[in-house]
Amino acid sequence: MHCIEEVQHTGYESRPIVRHKDVAGRPAIDNVAEELPVALVYNGISHAVMMATPLDLEAFAVGFSLTEGIVAHNAQIHDIDVSVHRHSAEIRLQIGEQAFAAMKAQRRALAGRTGCGVCGIESLELLDLQPARIREPARRLVPSRELLERAVSALPSHQRLMRATGGVHAAAWCNANGEILHAFEDVGRHNGLDKLIGHLAMQRVALDDGFVLLSSRASYELVRKAARMNIQMLATISAPTSLAIRIAEQAGLRLLSFCRADGYIDYTGPGTAP
Amino acid sequence: MHCIEEVQHTGYESRPIVRHKDVAGRPAIDNVAEELPVALVYNGISHAVMMATPLDLEAFAVGFSLTEGIVAHNAQIHDIDVSVHRHSAEIRLQIGEQAFAAMKAQRRALAGRTGCGVCGIESLELLDLQPARIREPARRLVPSRELLERAVSALPSHQRLMRATGGVHAAAWCNANGEILHAFEDVGRHNGLDKLIGHLAMQRVALDDGFVLLSSRASYELVRKAARMNIQMLATISAPTSLAIRIAEQAGLRLLSFCRADGYIDYTGPGTAP
Repeated sequence: MHCIEEVQHTGYESRPIVRHKDVAGRPAIDNVAEELPVALVYNGISHAVMMATPLDLEAFAVGFSLTEGIVAHNAQIHDIDVSVHRHSAEIRLQIGEQAFAAMKAQRRALAGRTGCGVCGIESLELLDLQPARIREPARRLVPSRELLERAVSALPSHQRLMRATGGVHAAAWCNANGEILHAFEDVGRHNGLDKLIGHLAMQRVALDDGFVLLSSRASYELVRKAARMNIQMLATISAPTSLAIRIAEQAGLRLLSFCRADGYIDYTGPGTAP
Repeated sequence: MHCIEEVQHTGYESRPIVRHKDVAGRPAIDNVAEELPVALVYNGISHAVMMATPLDLEAFAVGFSLTEGIVAHNAQIHDIDVSVHRHSAEIRLQIGEQAFAAMKAQRRALAGRTGCGVCGIESLELLDLQPARIREPARRLVPSRELLERAVSALPSHQRLMRATGGVHAAAWCNANGEILHAFEDVGRHNGLDKLIGHLAMQRVALDDGFVLLSSRASYELVRKAARMNIQMLATISAPTSLAIRIAEQAGLRLLSFCRADGYIDYTGPGTAP
């Protein structure tokens, strides 16, 4: 990987604001989360632009490529060049010929499909609403209040950007004991998940003996990305959508939401069949 | 407008779940927000699929067409057909020839550009990061803690789906006194805003003498959509991003965030120049 950083981004900007809290009109300095367009270019062909926080962009590129099915595994990515400018970033990937040929064929069909999992898709027929079942893991995790509480209570200590800005989401990888081993933040929840998955792939972490904890809601594209990586369990702090649950059921992915200090709600385990 | 509803959607589904809160493993019924793919078809050409809550889809179609610049005004939309199925919906719009020709030309350039404002865009050159300044309103609203508190405290009473599910965002139109006149909910914050703007356009509400209150964060695409409609003020419950602030500054749109019972933070008013 090569990285050119014209500007050293911290993930947030400090800006003059005027606080109208308690007392009126007090000038102050506030930190706001950085959001900037990040272009993904595969073998010289522009593929997508995502609005993202310009940190951990190599992991983001690897994760996006995997969760969007552009490459089947990390080894198909031969090179990554990251150029970070003041108001944008560009990631140039070199991927294997076979993956690139498949991507071009898919692009002809989808014409602009990108990371939200659905934006850019032009018609209902092209939607991927029938996910394959995940590969059965060596052992199925058994969720418990203790397991979830351990992960949830540890999450804030991994949310540096959230503490600074109040405006980003986190995606964390937890082991079977609920300990957080890796965590990433981004203004976009799907970008945070992509950064996490890319990092895990680069570190060769096995994805079948742990789970993902997200600070956000559970929507379609998050479950779909996790299922594509054969992740067996997804826990979210906030609510799931109807489609997130349906995709999780079809993929055999355990979906736990409203994970808080007082417990969690199981949406796809035993006793939840519709 | 014609509407075929195979299924009557309420905006949420009731599902069996298992609650692990306080006491462990109690079966219950939970309401989850409906998220389903909604296809937008213009003059017979599939244009985009958005993940949305299947309510108020005519308003959504009008708002999306306006905020994405597909039509310049409501009168260019000649007909709208909404078909709602169990797991998807389709909106077929007939738009004027001039708007349709411009859309086709833009499609050739953008290849799949859709509602997030950036998803589907393939390269940085195609991004719209230089918004025009909004048309100067007859009178500029002067924000105050009283104004914002009135709107913020009234918002929950308009959040029927949020009460049922805990998983959706609201977009509300407030008059110059901070009274909420219209509000819409959706799993996607940009869809909520599109439904609101579409409804206001259909009701011929002047957009220059009121403001929009959003229950979400303020990100790029929300400010861009509001600026395109010459909305002079956007107030959000949660944090803004760096790019949302920059776009608001360039457009001359007043951006207030962290609007809560104890006040708000002004990101673009006097005293905030970077």
